[in-house]
Amino acid sequence: MSQLLIKNGKVILGQDAKIESVDLLIKDKTITEIRPNIDYKELENNNENITVIDASEKLVSPGFIQTHLHFCQTLFRGSADDLELLDWLRLRVWPMEASHNPASLSASTLLSLGELIKSGTTSALTMETVHHTETVLEVVEKTGFRATIGKCMMDKGYGVPSRLSEKTKDSLNASLDLIKSWKSESGRVSCCFAPRFAISCTQELLETISKIAQENNLLIHTHASENLKEIEVVQNETGLRNVEYLQKVGLAGKNIALAHCVHVNEYEQRILAETGTHVLHCPSSNLKLGSGLAPITEMLELGVSVSIGADGAPCNNNLDMFKEMRLAALLQKMRYGSSSLPAKKAFYLATLAGAKALGLEEKIGSIEVGKTADIIIVNLNQLHSTPTPDLLSALVYSANASDVETVIIDGQILMYKRELKTLDEKEIIAKANKEYSELVKRAGI
Amino acid sequence: MSQLLIKNGKVILGQDAKIESVDLLIKDKTITEIRPNIDYKELENNNENITVIDASEKLVSPGFIQTHLHFCQTLFRGSADDLELLDWLRLRVWPMEASHNPASLSASTLLSLGELIKSGTTSALTMETVHHTETVLEVVEKTGFRATIGKCMMDKGYGVPSRLSEKTKDSLNASLDLIKSWKSESGRVSCCFAPRFAISCTQELLETISKIAQENNLLIHTHASENLKEIEVVQNETGLRNVEYLQKVGLAGKNIALAHCVHVNEYEQRILAETGTHVLHCPSSNLKLGSGLAPITEMLELGVSVSIGADGAPCNNNLDMFKEMRLAALLQKMRYGSSSLPAKKAFYLATLAGAKALGLEEKIGSIEVGKTADIIIVNLNQLHSTPTPDLLSALVYSANASDVETVIIDGQILMYKRELKTLDEKEIIAKANKEYSELVKRAGI
Repeated sequence: MSQLLIKNGKVILGQDAKIESVDLLIKDKTITEIRPNIDYKELENNNENITVIDASEKLVSPGFIQTHLHFCQTLFRGSADDLELLDWLRLRVWPMEASHNPASLSASTLLSLGELIKSGTTSALTMETVHHTETVLEVVEKTGFRATIGKCMMDKGYGVPSRLSEKTKDSLNASLDLIKSWKSESGRVSCCFAPRFAISCTQELLETISKIAQENNLLIHTHASENLKEIEVVQNETGLRNVEYLQKVGLAGKNIALAHCVHVNEYEQRILAETGTHVLHCPSSNLKLGSGLAPITEMLELGVSVSIGADGAPCNNNLDMFKEMRLAALLQKMRYGSSSLPAKKAFYLATLAGAKALGLEEKIGSIEVGKTADIIIVNLNQLHSTPTPDLLSALVYSANASDVETVIIDGQILMYKRELKTLDEKEIIAKANKEYSELVKRAGI
Repeated sequence: MSQLLIKNGKVILGQDAKIESVDLLIKDKTITEIRPNIDYKELENNNENITVIDASEKLVSPGFIQTHLHFCQTLFRGSADDLELLDWLRLRVWPMEASHNPASLSASTLLSLGELIKSGTTSALTMETVHHTETVLEVVEKTGFRATIGKCMMDKGYGVPSRLSEKTKDSLNASLDLIKSWKSESGRVSCCFAPRFAISCTQELLETISKIAQENNLLIHTHASENLKEIEVVQNETGLRNVEYLQKVGLAGKNIALAHCVHVNEYEQRILAETGTHVLHCPSSNLKLGSGLAPITEMLELGVSVSIGADGAPCNNNLDMFKEMRLAALLQKMRYGSSSLPAKKAFYLATLAGAKALGLEEKIGSIEVGKTADIIIVNLNQLHSTPTPDLLSALVYSANASDVETVIIDGQILMYKRELKTLDEKEIIAKANKEYSELVKRAGI
């Protein structure tokens, strides 16, 4: 059994994020001891195979959990700037998604994982494109990252490239085949349903998914109420507000994760709260696409489950939780004053709240005995974060992605002293540039 | 004469920020040649002392210019989170400013300069505290940074610690003494007036400063219309809106720089446009203090001069132009749609517009023959900025402070491959931590 000992760090502990100077012992994947002065020599004498990481003067934190990403879009970074959501989709993102092949999708996934690990994200909920999602699953499994991944489903809608347009039955069968056939040896990578959004899916598709998901304890990950035009289309088609409609077709509940929820009225917010539906807040994306500003303060007050994601690289243009967490906090302060969404709450949204959305709160999202070791070590001893009277405030308001030194997922070290251990950074960049230029030609953009 | 040759970079050129693959030759402080393939050997044969920097596959940009900073406050980073502006000032920032001595102020200035250089800022307009501003001037002069620095003036107001409270005459004399006696050997560091804001200054003080500044071609740097309570106080005292009042006392014009201007009505915006008064936009600070969101789109449309600053570390909590530039763009997109404040405009606000506010647009803010070499070299060949179909978009939306590799100010290399050349990073951090803990004791916080 492999053991990992993290010594002398300042550790963000438990559900209430108290910071204490303790050591952490990790056996295989699991955190087994949390206390000061765990005796390295004593363990060594037992002839156990142990790796020791010195975290002196460093902050040891649960890894960040991003609940709304599109690995397939990371290759489109910078290709769709300054466009509004529906144009952004129809003129750029959909034609580019339609032009993906397994090689470009693999390159895009590796690029995503490299950036995520280097910026301290250890788990993700992602929506991929209509085809080749098995490639994404396999690449994630290999790298050691943790994710719940869905094949995008689109059986309706205007402006959809033919390659992305599915018949209801085919969409359903393709998703079900993927879910049934996928086996994650590590248990880190799972499959979910990912209908794109109400205007891309028939009512029949959504109702069928809802039923199957409930029976099989599966997650459904979709977009909702991101954009005023989107809401208008739903209202015209169904006579209902978006979240009301989603509830009607069975897309409300603890296994439902709705990205954005920017334009949700109080009635819809109450539906989200009462049904335990998860809201995936994407502050940079909502600003950059001109979508608006989600009523996070109101939803948190009502008890809605809110977590954070960077969304796709072409509408951000990073996958960096440090940027999202800080921005999420700052935007609510703008709306309701400087004490709104304080550092500790923003940190919660970026960690344990994400675990809850993934249904993994018993396993990840905080550092506790018995939990799986998804841990990052952050060096706050930097010019831009000195002094640090409050470590959590420094992490949320001052720290940068480049301050993350070590990343551990499932007990395995994936980055050490900023060097990726299961990925080759230069190779990823070269492959991404090559696949990008070929994809652009195929897409005819 | 020293020469510097920057080879093979992609250079952001001129006033319209066109990117071309050219070399740059810098003689002493001045950019003397911009063209492809400047022959290194030819120059060398002339027996000239030359340093060559290889910028292959890197972006060469004018350095960022931040027009609203407080070096004296950098030591208070993380000490005043989650407070509204007037409490933030009265409970934390003023007591801490009042507790500065030359040693703590020197530590705070060095900490600022280290962070600024490492994140690509090459010039700043700053407001310091009431005392010891000569320390700031001297430290900046020594490090090679470029700044226009003002002693804070406060001859009135509620809740001001006695040590910061000045008599009108004393405040004026102290500022004038500093301005007259300050000699910058390099010419990089100059002095300006820095009355805190309307509610901290008597009308007599503001009117006198205005007159002297006009006669002597001096800049006046102050805060205006940041906060609704501040505006209410001004309105109650003067019967006028803040910017109207400032115009009345002579604080409108090309030599006037007003930080924030969050709450300015259309009439005030027209005053700012017509008088050429400079607005210093601080997006993170305005959000974090819950102040609001400045009408930047409207002011730019009216032709107001707008540039960007990070404000003080305790209300940000960084001094990082990458964060400010991206946020400035994203916030206007939220207000007016995704094509608002595009990357190129945000870049302009972060560079040449800042030079204009400082009255230095003939000298810095863009890369042109005859201008002084204030230049940064940024490595966009990173996971988080791949691919890069548009380099300016990558710089504004994707790049991080840590991507800045080389910083040149006034023709001098201040950072090379991320290593500071005139400053000792570890020493700065150690000194800052020591001085911070002593200052907190003095301040009794």
